[in-house]
Formats: sequence, C-alpha cells, structure tokens
Amino acid sequence: MNYYDSILKKISDRSVVVGVIGLGYVGLPLAVAFARKGVTVLGFEKSGKKAESVNAGRNYIGDIKDEELAGVVKAGKLSATTDFSRIRECDAAIICVPTPLDKFKKPDMSFIEASCVDIGRNMKAGTFVSLESTTYPTTTEDFMKPILERESGLKEGADFWLCFSPERVDPGNKDYKTDNTPKVVGALGEQARQIALALYGIAIQHLHAVSSPRAAEMVKILENTYRLVNISLINELALLSGKMDINIWEVIEAAKTKPYGFQAFYPGPGIGGHCIPLDPFYLEYIAKGFNFDLTMINTAGNINNLMPYRMMNKIAFALNRHKKALNGSTILFLGVAYKPDIDDPRESPALLVMEAVAKKGARVLYHDPYIPEVTDDHGKTWKGVELTDEILSSADCVVFTTNHACFDVERIVEKAGLVVDTRNAVKRVHIEDGKVFKL
Amino acid sequence: MNYYDSILKKISDRSVVVGVIGLGYVGLPLAVAFARKGVTVLGFEKSGKKAESVNAGRNYIGDIKDEELAGVVKAGKLSATTDFSRIRECDAAIICVPTPLDKFKKPDMSFIEASCVDIGRNMKAGTFVSLESTTYPTTTEDFMKPILERESGLKEGADFWLCFSPERVDPGNKDYKTDNTPKVVGALGEQARQIALALYGIAIQHLHAVSSPRAAEMVKILENTYRLVNISLINELALLSGKMDINIWEVIEAAKTKPYGFQAFYPGPGIGGHCIPLDPFYLEYIAKGFNFDLTMINTAGNINNLMPYRMMNKIAFALNRHKKALNGSTILFLGVAYKPDIDDPRESPALLVMEAVAKKGARVLYHDPYIPEVTDDHGKTWKGVELTDEILSSADCVVFTTNHACFDVERIVEKAGLVVDTRNAVKRVHIEDGKVFKL
Repeated sequence: MNYYDSILKKISDRSVVVGVIGLGYVGLPLAVAFARKGVTVLGFEKSGKKAESVNAGRNYIGDIKDEELAGVVKAGKLSATTDFSRIRECDAAIICVPTPLDKFKKPDMSFIEASCVDIGRNMKAGTFVSLESTTYPTTTEDFMKPILERESGLKEGADFWLCFSPERVDPGNKDYKTDNTPKVVGALGEQARQIALALYGIAIQHLHAVSSPRAAEMVKILENTYRLVNISLINELALLSGKMDINIWEVIEAAKTKPYGFQAFYPGPGIGGHCIPLDPFYLEYIAKGFNFDLTMINTAGNINNLMPYRMMNKIAFALNRHKKALNGSTILFLGVAYKPDIDDPRESPALLVMEAVAKKGARVLYHDPYIPEVTDDHGKTWKGVELTDEILSSADCVVFTTNHACFDVERIVEKAGLVVDTRNAVKRVHIEDGKVFKL
Repeated sequence: MNYYDSILKKISDRSVVVGVIGLGYVGLPLAVAFARKGVTVLGFEKSGKKAESVNAGRNYIGDIKDEELAGVVKAGKLSATTDFSRIRECDAAIICVPTPLDKFKKPDMSFIEASCVDIGRNMKAGTFVSLESTTYPTTTEDFMKPILERESGLKEGADFWLCFSPERVDPGNKDYKTDNTPKVVGALGEQARQIALALYGIAIQHLHAVSSPRAAEMVKILENTYRLVNISLINELALLSGKMDINIWEVIEAAKTKPYGFQAFYPGPGIGGHCIPLDPFYLEYIAKGFNFDLTMINTAGNINNLMPYRMMNKIAFALNRHKKALNGSTILFLGVAYKPDIDDPRESPALLVMEAVAKKGARVLYHDPYIPEVTDDHGKTWKGVELTDEILSSADCVVFTTNHACFDVERIVEKAGLVVDTRNAVKRVHIEDGKVFKL
C-alpha cells in the first residue's frame, strides 16, 4: 500500500497516531479533542513540567474540563513526552507552538523553525504535517517546506504532506471550543487536502477548505487584523469623545441597534492577548518583502501603542483635579488579565500602564482575583493585593483595567476616593460627582 | 394649555401636522411612513418638479412602493409645496436635506443652514424641530440652535424644541425600511425627548433614546466610519493579496466561517454612495477644532482616494499583457451604480475610473441596466450602451465595476477578449486563462 492510501486507511479505522507539538492553550485542547474520539495522541512539549502534568492527568488550561483530560490520559489515549525522537511513532504531526514578536516587533519564527527541525529529523515517510500557529502568508510553502525537506531528505507531496490550518481558540468562550469552531484548512496539493479533511474531520465538526496554505494563513491574519483595526478605531474615537463630552459607550450601545452592517467593539487601555497585538504585524513584515506598506495596520498599531500612555495621562489628570501628583500617589489597578473573567495576563495593557505609572514615581498596587502574581516584560514580578476596604479607601486612585464580572463595582466606587474607568465598569451615563473619570 | 401639553395632545390624537424638509431618499419615505399612520404631512421641497411629482402621486424613490405614495396623496394625508412660509402650519419640522462635502472635502452645511433659516423665519411657537441629516457632533446644539433662535426670536427649550435623530436609510435593503429600522433619538432636554419619542413613535417601530443630540450625531458617524475603515482595510489587503497570489474573496469567505468576532467586507474599485465616502470627514473636520487628528479615518480615506487610480493601473497592465496601451483602447465598464441592483450613481467609484481612463486616451463605454445616462463631477454626461455581443467582443477590455445580479457573467466572459473584475463577479477561484484579471 502506498503512503497516501495507508494514512487514509489509518485515519478511517482510527489507528492513526497523531503527534501534537506544543501543549499550550491551542495544542492541549486539540490533543484532548482527538483523544476523546479514540485516536492515540502523543503530545510533544519542551517543558518537562507540562509533560509531567499531562501524564499525571492534571489540567492546566482553562478551556479544558479537568475530567476530560484525566479521562483520556487514564484511557491511554493521550500521553506527553519531551523526547522529540518519538515523532517517528506518529502518522501526523500538528504544530501548535507560539509565534511571538521579538522586541523590535519582528516575527520570531524560532519556535516554528525548531519544530520543523525536530519533525524533519525524526518523521517517517508518509507523515502528514500541519501548522496551526498564526504566521505570515507563504510560511508553510516557503519557510517550513525547505526545512522539512532538508532535515528529512524526504520530498513534500510524495513522501510527506503539508497543510496550514489556523487555530481559532478564543480563551474563555463558553459556546465555541476546539471541536465546534469551524476550522479552515489550506493544504498543499490535492492529496494533502484529502488527508487534512479526513484527519481533522475526526475531531472537528465543520471544516472549510481553501485552495492553498497561503490563503489559510491570510484568513487567520484577516480575522485578527479586523479586530485590531476596529479596536484601534474605537479607541481613537473614545479619546475624541472624551474631549467632546460624549460618552462613547452610550454611542456604541445606540449604534448596536442598527440591525445590519455594524459590529460593536469597545475601547480600553490598549490591546492584549496572544493574537490581536501580534498577528497583524506578521502580515506587515511579509508585506514589506513585497514592497507594500500596510498603512491601516501601521496606523492601528500606533494608536494602540500609545493607549497605555494616554491612560497614564488620564490617571495623572484625574489626580490633578484632586491637587495630587502621580509621584508619591498610590494607584490601585483592578484587573491585569487581558480580557474579563480569564486568568491570562499575556500582552495585557494593564501591565504597561502599571509600569508607566510606577516609572513616574507612583506606588502601584493591583488586584486580580484570577491572577495572584504576574511578571512584566522587564522581568519584574508584581504581587496582587486583597481588595479590602482599607486598600480601596487609602488608594489615591483606583483604576478599572479589566472588567471582570465578579468586581463589586458599587462597593468599589463607594469606598474609593477617585476612580479612573477605562472599561465602562461604572455604567451610569453621567458621572458628575468628580469621583469617576472615564476613558 | 402650554406648548408642551399641546403638542403631546396633538401627537396623541394624531392631529399633529408634520413638516418634512427635503423630499429625497430620506424625507419622502419618512413622510409616507407618517402619512400612512393617518398623520397630515406637508413636504417642503426646493425642486418644483419633485413637489409636483409628489402631488400627482408619482413616486421617484426606489424604496417606496408606488401605490403607497399614491394612496396617501389621494387620501389627502401627504402634499408637497415649494412655499416654505407654510412651515407655520406645522407642529413639527423634520429636516432631511443633503450634507455633502465641498470640493476640498469640507462639510457643506449650506442645506442645513438654509433649512434652519426657513424654519426659524416661519415656525410658530411650540414647534418641534428635528434634524435627520448626517453631520458632525455639536451641530444641533452649536450650529442649528443659534440660527433658529436668531431667525425666530423664540427660545429653545421654552418656545421650541430641538432633536437630532439620524436617518439610517439603506437604499435597496429588502428587510429594513424606514418604519422597521430602529431609530436613535438624541433630544435637547427632557421635554424634547418626550416629544421626540411620542412623535417618532407614531411612524417608527423601535426608538432608542440617547442622552444628547451630540451622542446621536456621533452614533451615525460611528456606524459609517466603521464601514469606511473596514472597506479600506479590505481594499488594502486585496491589493497586497494580488501581489502575493492570494484570492482575497476566497479568504473572506473562509474568514466568515468564524462564528464570532468577524464581519465580512468586500473590496472594490473604491467607496461610493451618499454616506460612507462623506460622513467620516464631517467628524474629521470637527475633530480638528478640538486639536485632534483622526488618523484611522485619514488613512482609510487615503486608501480609498487611490483605489480608482489603482484600478486604472490594473486595467492598463491587463491590456499590457495583450501588448496594448490604454491610449486608443476601448474600455467597456459594467455598472456605474455605487452598489448592486440600485439605480444610484452618487459618488460611484466607477465614474472616477472611467474619467481617469478616458484622460489617458482610452475610448470609454459603459453599460448599466439601471442607469441609462450619468453625469460626472465635471459636468460631463455619459450615455450607456446596450450590452450586445458586438460591443463585448470589440472592447479591448471589459471591466466589472458593479456586481448587478442581472449581469450574465458567463456570457460576458465568453464574449469578451479581456476582463478586469473589481467585484468578484467571476467566481472561479483560479483564473489561469489570461483572460480574467482580478483586483
């Protein structure tokens, strides 16, 4: 039997062994989704601690139910390893590693590169390789394929297949998880396409095939660029609205009554999370290689880079109304998660505001019920405080940076002497008591 | 009885007389909606031709059913006049006049100003005045109110009331018409708010009140700025995709499978219509008065200003593949309406491409089943041609500029020697025959 028929048969009788590279918030849910369908999954993870945790059935990802992870591990369907030579046991290798930006905001492709080297050196002929990490269009064809061919000595399309299928994980989303979020698949060639649809079809309810990996790469970036641009637009309009004595949140609620052609985005102290602040700049990077400037992304990026400093100014001028300076004041931040009701502080704009304010001499405290401590980009670790009445009333300014549903806003506003609200946590349309200042 | 109780009583017993200033695509449907509820409506129109047409029961607006207009005219509920002194017969005056940009892209407030002068000079005490025309925030309070008070000698809030309630007419929309599109109302003061809700409540099913006219003014501009920015973004990504051998329409269709956080916009030769190319620049104008640069709107505007010239290049380089120059070639444009299946060429980007191409020496023809002739910004009138096989096959290039549903795309592509498709009229993902070029 040739490689192609062989892998399709294994997929069809569920004897296919799936390797998942990287067991983070994308890889682990995907591994569990396959394992729950009876497929044997081998998870590859550089962190021994994470691999151990998986093998002990201990969950560390919010979007996975503890008992589901424990169940598939106990059933022998999912195990994790730090030994990448075991990739040769796999029929498919799905890469779910980070694609961050370096400190000059250039794509850091080192994780994808390392995964390709590991897979290339260890895979057997007839392996299906898929990338899920967000990256710039052309990555699969022009970056991954040469590494895999060089390291393996095998030939793409004949001895192994390539595919790009972007993750769409939305942490904390109660309705859409890995298995019921439609998945885009862009395979290289018709055989890869057939394998991709068959394999992912085991674990994912709805697949949407596009004609090439580069089209699929662009899909994911379009989705997140759309979000970046719209959040930036509403942030800029929020700043103008502040000057014009218009409550931007009231405006958004009213615009939402338009039954077509409008989607609401909300302002905030900046953009956070693992996707929106990063993905568009992967596209900006590759566009420059085509002598093309993406002016919308560039403009949107500028607005958001400045938002934390605008928030610092907002805090400083709120204090100023009380005849106080930032220098020497105590500022209590509420929420360092990048969005409500989750425990993820990645790229959180709250941290940037905290750093900026601390640099001006303020004493900075924070409270986040989901994040007891957090380390900023400069390696400094901050420890959260309890939200006592004493801390609330002794702070010179209390700043809402994340709108966790569990915050008792009424109590906070009552106890605090001064509030800066970057999230519309305080819903009243007119705040005229000189205590609450909005973005 | 005081003015306030009096107008509320008239609204309640439907004896209120509503004046509608401007009987265009906003005013006439609104007039008909009130008249159909049994309210006497007097339409004010500078154009004697339009007033005559209304009084004869002859409809000229696509979104109104002919028999509905004829019915309310025959019933004596709607009549039109060019005599603005008759505003004194009205209890309410609703302004639905154009708010264009001048040729330097600055707001042209002359229509609103003239309406306010007409109303101010003629209204009786106790009149409710509402503006529906899109304009920059603060217009109602800072621009209209002083004119009305000066011309009438009456006092806002005591002798007359003011409101801003933006029109949301979407020409050609089959589901949402004037009466069932939720309407935002931003009145000046509590009495004006009560009157506005009672009056508009006669004709409109769902009202959404905001706290001020300026909030309502911002609502409408947010809605259309959202559209401008997103169309600009997708146009820019379309241009990049062309360079990267990615079909942007395929990408958009795939992104649409994301069940949350994405709304699809489509690229085209530019932005047309009476709202999206104009409204955001009203906001940009007033923002400058607050020392604020709206960088997103500015960037989006730049992209769209250039789109027609990019399309000209696209046509020139498509011809170039056939070893032809623009100069001396015959170019046939399909569609000059600014969106599909309507007869409105306002701000149509097709016209800009036609002008640009003609300037380079091309012989320009166009066909639009809904628009037999059209006058461009420079006063030149173009006459449409029939879509014969001869014209299709003799044109050096056929350009899809509007995707009217009635176009027989297969026939057009078959007969044409060269096609430039700015609207994805030709759906096939891969066009490799050298005949069809996409945006």
